[in-house]
This record gives sequence, C-alpha cells and structure tokens, in this order.
Amino acid sequence: MGNVIVGQSGGPTAVINSSLAGVYKTAKDRGANKVYGMQNGIKGLIEGRYVDLAYHIKDNLDLELLRRTPSSFLGSCRYKLPSHQDNEEVFAKIFATLKELDVESFLYIGGNDSMDTVMKLSKYAIDTNSNIRFIGVPKTIDNDLPITDHTPGYGSAAKYIGSTFKEIIRDGLVYGSDQINIVEIMGRNAGWLTAAASLAKGEDCEGPDMIFLPEVAFSLDNFYEKIAALHARNKKSIVVAVSEGVKFADGSYVCEYDTQSAKMTDAFGHKSLGGTAFVLSGLLSQKFKCKTRPIELSVLQRAAAHLTSRTDNAEAFLAGGQAVRAAFSGMTGMTVVFERISDDPYMIETALVEVEKIANIEKKVPNLWVTENGSYVAKELTDYIRPLIQGELSQVMVDGLPRHLLLNV
Amino acid sequence: MGNVIVGQSGGPTAVINSSLAGVYKTAKDRGANKVYGMQNGIKGLIEGRYVDLAYHIKDNLDLELLRRTPSSFLGSCRYKLPSHQDNEEVFAKIFATLKELDVESFLYIGGNDSMDTVMKLSKYAIDTNSNIRFIGVPKTIDNDLPITDHTPGYGSAAKYIGSTFKEIIRDGLVYGSDQINIVEIMGRNAGWLTAAASLAKGEDCEGPDMIFLPEVAFSLDNFYEKIAALHARNKKSIVVAVSEGVKFADGSYVCEYDTQSAKMTDAFGHKSLGGTAFVLSGLLSQKFKCKTRPIELSVLQRAAAHLTSRTDNAEAFLAGGQAVRAAFSGMTGMTVVFERISDDPYMIETALVEVEKIANIEKKVPNLWVTENGSYVAKELTDYIRPLIQGELSQVMVDGLPRHLLLNV
Repeated sequence: MGNVIVGQSGGPTAVINSSLAGVYKTAKDRGANKVYGMQNGIKGLIEGRYVDLAYHIKDNLDLELLRRTPSSFLGSCRYKLPSHQDNEEVFAKIFATLKELDVESFLYIGGNDSMDTVMKLSKYAIDTNSNIRFIGVPKTIDNDLPITDHTPGYGSAAKYIGSTFKEIIRDGLVYGSDQINIVEIMGRNAGWLTAAASLAKGEDCEGPDMIFLPEVAFSLDNFYEKIAALHARNKKSIVVAVSEGVKFADGSYVCEYDTQSAKMTDAFGHKSLGGTAFVLSGLLSQKFKCKTRPIELSVLQRAAAHLTSRTDNAEAFLAGGQAVRAAFSGMTGMTVVFERISDDPYMIETALVEVEKIANIEKKVPNLWVTENGSYVAKELTDYIRPLIQGELSQVMVDGLPRHLLLNV
Repeated sequence: MGNVIVGQSGGPTAVINSSLAGVYKTAKDRGANKVYGMQNGIKGLIEGRYVDLAYHIKDNLDLELLRRTPSSFLGSCRYKLPSHQDNEEVFAKIFATLKELDVESFLYIGGNDSMDTVMKLSKYAIDTNSNIRFIGVPKTIDNDLPITDHTPGYGSAAKYIGSTFKEIIRDGLVYGSDQINIVEIMGRNAGWLTAAASLAKGEDCEGPDMIFLPEVAFSLDNFYEKIAALHARNKKSIVVAVSEGVKFADGSYVCEYDTQSAKMTDAFGHKSLGGTAFVLSGLLSQKFKCKTRPIELSVLQRAAAHLTSRTDNAEAFLAGGQAVRAAFSGMTGMTVVFERISDDPYMIETALVEVEKIANIEKKVPNLWVTENGSYVAKELTDYIRPLIQGELSQVMVDGLPRHLLLNV
C-alpha cells in the first residue's frame, strides 16, 4: 500500500483539525505506512514543504489534543491552482513530489475553492495515467457547499454565535437605556452563519431583533423603519445580526457605503470585507441619536475551539475517515458529503460525490427561509441548524487555559 | 431581624450574579425574612423599582443558573449619587423606601464608582441616626480597586482573554503570510485586563508580541521600531494586545488620533473609548503595507459566562456572603476585600475595610511590572494573574446553548 498525504486549505474552522485527526487515524488503522502533511496546503507542497505526521502525532493524547486545536494545524493557503493547460510545470512538480513520496492517496480538507484543486489534480492524474487518488474533505464555517446537508466547521461556528448572541443580548439589557448593538458575522455571499444568531432565541432570551443575510438586498429605509418601530414599542436594547457581505439593491456592499473603509482583494479575487457593522452603527447613531456599538465577531467565530459542537467535531473526524476509506477503495475526484436521514433523532449518512458537483459552487440560503421583509429567518432554518450545535467537547485545560497541539517544524 | 436589599451597579462582569447569589443565599440561610433586589441599582430604587428575590430565585437550580448568568441580573446603572448637601431630597427618598421595606442591610455590588454610593449612604445614615447598614461587594473586570488583592470579575475576564488570545494567535499562523492583528481590550486607566493577554504564552503558544497598557505613554516610533524588528526577524504573524485607554505622552488618547472616531461621555464624566485597535491598524497598514486587522473584544470579555474561572466565580459568591455577614454583625460603611495569603497553593482571606479607602480610587499596574520599554509585562504580573483563572464552572447546557436565569418583571 502506498503512502497518504493530507493538506488543509482556505479559512480555518474550530474543527478542521478533527478532520485531520480522522484522516490520520483512519489511514494508520487501515495500514498506511506513512501519512504526510502538506504545510500550507498545495502551495507548500509545490515548494516542497511537508512533514511526516508520525513525528507530530505521537500518541492518542496528541490525537485528542489535535481534535481540540483551532486553526489549521498544518497551515493553510489561498492558492488557486492554474489549469494544467496554462501551467503544466506546476502539475509536473506536484506529481513528481507525490511520486517521490510514494503517495497513493491525496486528501484535501477545504471549501469550494479547495475542491477546485482536488478536481484539477484528479483530472490531471487521469489524463496522465497516474494512479494517485484525490479525495476532498469538506470544511467551511460558511456552510455554502452544495449537495451536502451541511459542512464540518459550520456547527461549531453556529454554536459560538448562538452562545455569544445570548451573552451580548444579556449585556445590552443591563442599563435599561436605549442602545443598538450591531453584530457583524462572517459570510460574503451566503448567510448560513449569520442565521445562526437566531439560535439565541428561547425561554431565557428574546434573540436578536433583526437578522440580515447577504442573499437579500439590504434597504436602509426598511432598516430605519424597523428600528423606529422597535423604539415605538419602547424596546430599549436592540441587537442586530448582520452578515459582513450584505449588499444594497444596486449590488454595492454596505461596508463600502463608508468611503473610508479599506478594500482588499484576496488571491481568489474575493473582496476582503468587514466594517459593515461599523458603517451601520455610524448611520444609526446619526439618525436616532442613541448609543450604538458595532461588534465584529472577527476570527473568534472560526477559532473558538473552546466552544465546539461535539456533533460537529465528531462529523469532521468522520468526514476525514470516510475520505481515506474512499481513496483506499480506489475512488478519485470525489468528495465526502453528508445526507440528513432524520431530524429527531438527528441522523446523518455520508456519501461520496464527484467533486465537480461541489467545486466553485456556492449554496445560498433559500428565499423561503428569509422572512419579515428580509430582516429575519424562518423557524425552519433555525430548526435545520439546531441539531448541528448539540453537545460539547471538553478542552484539555492546563493551568487555566485550553491546551493545543503545535506543529514544531 | 430586618430585611435585606441588594443592588448591582456599573459595568457587568461574568460573575457579578455569583455575588448576588452569595448575598441571597447567605442572607436567607442566616434568617433574613425578605431579600429585595433593586432594579438598575440605586437609580431604580430612587424610582421605586425593586423586586422580592424569593419570587425570582425559587430553588437551588435557579441559584446555580444565577451563578452562571452573565450581565447584571437585576440590571445596573451608572448613576452618581449627589452629595446630601446638594440634594437631600434624593437621600430622603431612598431612606423612606428602605424604611417602608423594613430594610436593615443594604448590599451594593460594584466598582469604585459604586463604592462612592455606599460611602455617601452610610455617612448619611450615621448623620441621621438611621440604623441601616451599608456594605459594598467589589466587582469589576478592571481589577482597579485599591487594597484588595484583586476584584471578583477580573479572573473570569482574564481567563477569557488568555484563552481568546491563544485562539487568535493560532488563527494568525494559518497562512504563513505577513499580518498584524491588533487586539483591543477594555481598560480606561488601568491595564490589569490587557496584561492578561500574557497568559497565552506557554509551551504551545508564543503569546502576544507586544502588550500596551494605559499606565505607560504610548509612542508610535517605539511601536513602529518593534514591528520593524519583528519583521527583520522574519516573524510573519504579529499579535499585539492594546488597552482601549492607551495615551500618547501628551495625554491624548490614541483612539482620538483618528479624527473620525466618535467620542461620548458617560454619567461619571468618563470618555467612552474604543477604536484604538482601528486607529493603530490603519496606521500600520499605511506604514508597513501588510495585512492588518483590528479586533475589539468588546462586551464579549465581560459577558463570557461560558468561560468563567471557577476560582473567580467562587470568590464572587464568597464576597457576597461575607458582605451579608458583616452587615448582620452590625458593620456599616465597609467593603469586602481579599488578602492573598499564599500563591502556591493559592489561598485568600477576606476582610472588611472602610469604604472611603476604596471609593473613587483607581489602582494601576505598578511601573515595575511593565517591561521592554513599555511594550510587555513582567513575569511577576502574569504569575499574579494565573491563580485567578484556575478551574471551570460548567454551564447548564440546554439544546446546545448555555441556559441563563432571566428576571421576569
């Protein structure tokens, strides 16, 4: 049996290392000789940077620590592989390294951009009669991959957001004075994560007053009207959840309404957003003359390993394991997906689908699940998310803080 | 035995309700008939707003939930009591209500501004031959009260900050590219909380690269030099902890360097700060042409009940209980303080001191504990904080999220 190599790509999640642990343990259990890890994904592999994971995951305690470690243990990249017609040299280099390492199974943990890498490499392998198998392991806090019921990483980020919203909403009640907190959540084009703010609503919490997703055009007039209506009902503390990627009807980003905010573009051509809460907070402060506060959950929402969902963590591990099983059974150009069998009791099954069906495609929140003139989400959406946040995975606490596994290279 | 009334004042903490639980349980255990809660502190009492806590804390489960509920259960206020020479009417009103409720013990949970309230009321009581006793229960995430070794609320905020810094630092390593994260922490004049970022440093984490406290004049040149030195050492990801209240040598706030940032003043005449990370991030981005990101921990650092320190939570409860014991023994005009008996094993004792010694006085981080030309903190300071973050208090999780106790009025 040949060796295995695994990489992590794109933005990290709180459980992306649980998928890495799932790949490593399953590969070793099934007799893999070496399991290599690419440093900084395919970019690092092209530069010849990789490690033998056996030197870094020495025992079961390391494996358990890895499952509880946020951010990408192996490092990540945002590298768009060219087409092999445009740059065959890169492909030749990658395959030469894989041959040198006697790799037969290549596992790549990432989102839709990373699935593009799996697709291109698996096609090139077939075209060049290589027998290396390429399998994708989905991950993204954005939950924007098609076909799969949901993505590993989403449940933990959703749990963090639901929990944090409960805390922010409670904090807002404290003075009994007028204030508006605008909480900005990650999500360029898909509002799945922002929708998780609705989880906060329950017996002990009113939940956010409004939730704005990027799928629906944002109207300032509509927003002002709803704030005015809440004030008319004498609602003192207002908490609004807003996706970083909300746009006006003309397609321009709300965060660009303020000419001051910086714009940057990443390697995939995505604009780096942020500042939506800041812009809205400033506008409301002028309009309503009350205290407003922008809160950006920033990287905390994807890095909060101290509050992962046990369900999500277990599923991330499972996805890594299933990818290895698929590769070992001879599949290639496929990715693991989840199918929801039942809501209550919650049950999923895994399946493998052709990576073309997932790569570069974004799944958005259906219009049906957006309510109240675009300012809230349907109960069906909250019900869909709820099973994904169940259970906790206790951290290994050392001297008062969570202990993580560090890649020492 | 007369009745008891308790209020919460100033900014909330993650364990301020543990002190409330300590007051309630101790008062009831020691035979108090009624325990009233002021809504929104002394401000609400003046307006005649209070509750009988027996209707809101019905059993031991409620008491346990209360200990795990962030923000001030009874609501808070930022109300500065006038001197009784200036406005005796307010005092007359307060004492009339207390008489009507047959209150003999008045407990007030708050920071230095709230201790001013305890001081004024206790003096007025003595001047007017009232036998009502007034005792303070310290709380503040800022840890800026004199005499006491530390304040309830500080340990939990410090644990949240230490844990969050570990996660932010890990997240920053992921792409292996140049980036600077500026993380802003609460603290107008005292840097105790910002210093807690140093807790992140350990076997599995390098810790923040710089820590700037408001006690030391902030120099942009010094800051730029240190960033340049890190870049010269090829340090890719830089994480800086900065207090919201850092000032330049001329006394102006760093957050005011940007003329755009809003300024507001609260009821105590404090400027409402914020935006320090935003300003520094903008300056660095211009100067070093690399990716920079401002992260404000905002209210999350004082509301994160899901990550409280068990030590802090227990001490907050104890402080509430000791205040009741003091009042019941006839003391007045006093506040509970902690004395550290030993670091290892960590042990404290409580004592009562005259509230004048605490009211309106801010304890700052000693110069000796600031190092590296004002850009880091001494090991002694981290060692001082470490025992305060030990232990966890599991939340009552319901359907995937922490459950809180809500005051229904």
